[in-house]
Amino acid sequence: MALVAGQARAPSRALGRADLHASVSDPVLDTMNFLNEITHRYPEAISFAPGRPYDGFFDTEQVFTHLRRYLEHLAGNGHTDAGIRDAIFQYGPTSGRIRDLVADSLAKDEGIDVPPESIVITVGAQEAMLLTLRALIAGPQDVLLVSSPCYVGITGAARLLDAEVGAVDEEEDGFACAALEAALARERARGRRPRAFYVIPDHANPSGTTMSLEQRHALLDLADREGFLVLEDSPYRLVSPGRQLPTLKALDRTGRVVHLGSFSKTLFPGARVGFVVADQPVADGRGGAGLLADELTKIKSMVTVNTSPLSQAVVGGMLLAAGGRTRELNAAAAAYYEQAMRGTLRALDGCFTEAERAALGVRWNRPSGGFFLAMRVPFHAGNAALARSAEHFGVIWTPMSYFYPLGGGDRALRLSISYLSDTEITEGAARLARFIRAEAKEGRAAC
Amino acid sequence: MALVAGQARAPSRALGRADLHASVSDPVLDTMNFLNEITHRYPEAISFAPGRPYDGFFDTEQVFTHLRRYLEHLAGNGHTDAGIRDAIFQYGPTSGRIRDLVADSLAKDEGIDVPPESIVITVGAQEAMLLTLRALIAGPQDVLLVSSPCYVGITGAARLLDAEVGAVDEEEDGFACAALEAALARERARGRRPRAFYVIPDHANPSGTTMSLEQRHALLDLADREGFLVLEDSPYRLVSPGRQLPTLKALDRTGRVVHLGSFSKTLFPGARVGFVVADQPVADGRGGAGLLADELTKIKSMVTVNTSPLSQAVVGGMLLAAGGRTRELNAAAAAYYEQAMRGTLRALDGCFTEAERAALGVRWNRPSGGFFLAMRVPFHAGNAALARSAEHFGVIWTPMSYFYPLGGGDRALRLSISYLSDTEITEGAARLARFIRAEAKEGRAAC
Repeated sequence: MALVAGQARAPSRALGRADLHASVSDPVLDTMNFLNEITHRYPEAISFAPGRPYDGFFDTEQVFTHLRRYLEHLAGNGHTDAGIRDAIFQYGPTSGRIRDLVADSLAKDEGIDVPPESIVITVGAQEAMLLTLRALIAGPQDVLLVSSPCYVGITGAARLLDAEVGAVDEEEDGFACAALEAALARERARGRRPRAFYVIPDHANPSGTTMSLEQRHALLDLADREGFLVLEDSPYRLVSPGRQLPTLKALDRTGRVVHLGSFSKTLFPGARVGFVVADQPVADGRGGAGLLADELTKIKSMVTVNTSPLSQAVVGGMLLAAGGRTRELNAAAAAYYEQAMRGTLRALDGCFTEAERAALGVRWNRPSGGFFLAMRVPFHAGNAALARSAEHFGVIWTPMSYFYPLGGGDRALRLSISYLSDTEITEGAARLARFIRAEAKEGRAAC
Repeated sequence: MALVAGQARAPSRALGRADLHASVSDPVLDTMNFLNEITHRYPEAISFAPGRPYDGFFDTEQVFTHLRRYLEHLAGNGHTDAGIRDAIFQYGPTSGRIRDLVADSLAKDEGIDVPPESIVITVGAQEAMLLTLRALIAGPQDVLLVSSPCYVGITGAARLLDAEVGAVDEEEDGFACAALEAALARERARGRRPRAFYVIPDHANPSGTTMSLEQRHALLDLADREGFLVLEDSPYRLVSPGRQLPTLKALDRTGRVVHLGSFSKTLFPGARVGFVVADQPVADGRGGAGLLADELTKIKSMVTVNTSPLSQAVVGGMLLAAGGRTRELNAAAAAYYEQAMRGTLRALDGCFTEAERAALGVRWNRPSGGFFLAMRVPFHAGNAALARSAEHFGVIWTPMSYFYPLGGGDRALRLSISYLSDTEITEGAARLARFIRAEAKEGRAAC
């Protein structure tokens, strides 16, 4: 083997994980793997872990119908057969083919009025997060702020880009503007430039909390005053019951909000179609200006080139079928999830008397929608506890600590209600209660 | 406006491109935009620029047939209706659903025998490049080597990750092992760790060159000796005429080759389905070992979560229809491109006598397949020349300088033959010849 002068050490034939980018050694990935293993090892356990949407309303044949509808839409809009072939077969525009349909839907569903040119169609909201972070995190001085606990998709994308993350502690009822102000000051004092704050304002993953209207206005005022962007991610709104508060983007008067969009809960995850609304002007330094969406499009050309025109066609067909009103399309789904959430809360209420809750130190929140609720427990709810819960009690949940980017959440867990039947909810809550009582009795403070 | 202590400057409401990540200011993007603008401004010009596949063999209705075939395949393999619905509707496994079909196809088409577990299905080869680079570029000491000229997708992905790129100069007939050895020594002398060398061994984009069998063996020996990986990208092989030389991966006995796969030329670009073969063992530092594919899967979970199961289903249906033999599926396409390449060479031969070529200093290579050929010209073939060519001569081409990551290629251009009719080729070559003669006469050395 030739040893070349100047190299730090002999080239190794075998790869070690330590030689790879740190993102592959992220402890969150190991913990997620652990959760998957546990789920696989105890198939009979009732699982409050997965955040996937319920698919009982979906019929595979619909894919053919939706695709056909989109092709007819193209034909009706003057596309020749060759033009339609091109639209499905070829590379498409990097920013997407169905931006007009998404803009129409955003206006009807959410009162978000933006031109199609401000939208980039992405491979799910995950790619939208990656593109937005890449654009905004220009160097080591730039920092992303996230609520803590936080959805792992955004912190994972940050890790991939070696982007610094600052945590904004949530109160038990969710976002607190004072905590964000403190985080901004702290990061600036360290010489950092806070570029954006990521938040799920409605029925958050993992905490289930929703920002009040006052908090929304306060956040927008702060963003405007302090010159950072708000990355709004809100995939559960349109599958939640009743009237929702306005999105941050709908309230945004000064262009501070980048809205990350997902169709995974409202249409179907298998399309892998999401989007980002980025209507902020960007000066090019030569007297011209485009939109932030144009810059995200450039980045997308280096990530996925474009979102599958085939997937976009099926999503486009679904939007056309619904006349753009995905909220109406999801009325049955919203009622289904509402029943599951209410059933879970009712079952938990039935498992623990008020007195026992107080004595044990167990409590949970009461989300008005979404897929998740958060539960505080009187013991360390980590992987060891999860393994005992699955093995001895037949119930699985997600340790809340997975969602704390800088640590925390050791005595809390996340329960997801989106994929369980009424019977499973009742039985699962009873098993969870038995597990919690057993742990409390053992007095497991830390393990 | 509150000015917070410690901040470098007042927060700005307006975004400037200089505040965004440097990748959005990459000059390659501006030049590509310029090319697009020129193409748009002169719609009557004959364009040798686009590298898109010919779509005349494609029928939109086939999408329905292929999707149906894949669903029947699932049913035949014991999937229930609910299982099929899950396979199309839901999030899928991050590493992909059709790894077994791709592995089967690689064995039949390319003699690449790898287990499905070593494959990750990606959103086109572009995502495969990003994942692989992200895994291998662990820090600022790591460097990617690329041939120069080089496909812009890989250098774009490197820029997105702030990864250092080292250029390996190609000879006129392509890859030179000595140049790579020199680049390795140069980078190591600078304290850098060369992690990988990216190359298109067959009918390269942009140069049209093909590595000989001897060069392939020499490259693999060097990689093994020096401890770097070879990133093999070879999208044009199966749409090129005749028997191709073995892929680097088929010759790889020591696990040095990561094979980047695309279906954009062999099936259809609109699926946005590609893959990466990464069968290298990776030690986890705790006595265990997985495959590099597992590490790439982790990274993919932070980029796109998974490749659209719907797109994978259509690609899966196409692979099933062809019995995995995409080479046979592409016999007509390969003949089509072969005729276009031969026609282009014949037309160019007819435009310039041997004597005129020598007098002017014009020459071009004679690729045996693929979409591209490279032409040397006696003047600066940059954007200004391109604008004159489009406006006054009605012919468009790609400046070769776009493909030189560290500069160069000023007196060369790339001609693509994949999307032109015989008539357009003949007329396009004649226009190109008139343009070249005019430029040479003007004596434009640099502009």
